[in-house]
Amino acid sequence: MEIAIATTIDAPLDDAIAKTREALAAQGFGVLTEIDMAATLKAKIGAEMEGYVILGACNPPLAHSAVTAERQIGLLLPCNVVVRSDVDNPQRSIVEAMNPQLMVTVVDNPDLVAVADSATEKLTAAIESL
Amino acid sequence: MEIAIATTIDAPLDDAIAKTREALAAQGFGVLTEIDMAATLKAKIGAEMEGYVILGACNPPLAHSAVTAERQIGLLLPCNVVVRSDVDNPQRSIVEAMNPQLMVTVVDNPDLVAVADSATEKLTAAIESL
Repeated sequence: MEIAIATTIDAPLDDAIAKTREALAAQGFGVLTEIDMAATLKAKIGAEMEGYVILGACNPPLAHSAVTAERQIGLLLPCNVVVRSDVDNPQRSIVEAMNPQLMVTVVDNPDLVAVADSATEKLTAAIESL
Repeated sequence: MEIAIATTIDAPLDDAIAKTREALAAQGFGVLTEIDMAATLKAKIGAEMEGYVILGACNPPLAHSAVTAERQIGLLLPCNVVVRSDVDNPQRSIVEAMNPQLMVTVVDNPDLVAVADSATEKLTAAIESL
């Protein structure tokens, strides 16, 4: 199993983040959190890396179904979407959504299958729309 | 593999969140995000559930090691820590940290083993201190 549903787009980081937010919204995912990992690591330990942002995306009906099926599933929510600069070309960005099938892989609960399938379908549509 | 490193403590939710933040800080984890999942689901779709908060915990040196080993690992960062009310007794709370061994389970990259082991050790110490 691939852990990411991924694409590369012809947009620098800020544009890529805006486009990703729009694509997620079109599939019913709000962005609850945005972590600038590059800025955080620079501030905390002086580390340098390319632009790297983690969006925490949540589709409320799907999140509700997931926690109803399995209370521990909050450990894998919201669904992370990484947007990062292509180190070889900062005019391009890589967008990777966590593959929701990961939930089914690590939690043995058949009630999660349908919600993981639905989340996979919607996130794949969001990524393919970019 | 268990996906959670978990404990139950004699404290209502707000106290449990404060104690969890302190325990994480003592192991070098800052809390980058805090999602009130119960409030979010109530606001978005009217769903009712017990108090349920997701903390996004980040130990900067470990996070840097993880993204250096595997750029996609941001899909599993920060390390989620769920703090939720015990539905049978709201004076008690359940605290569950994502087991970092999950990273090694779903990503075939030997360079992640040491960082996952270190993160597991620190999160286990944090949870056991509660």
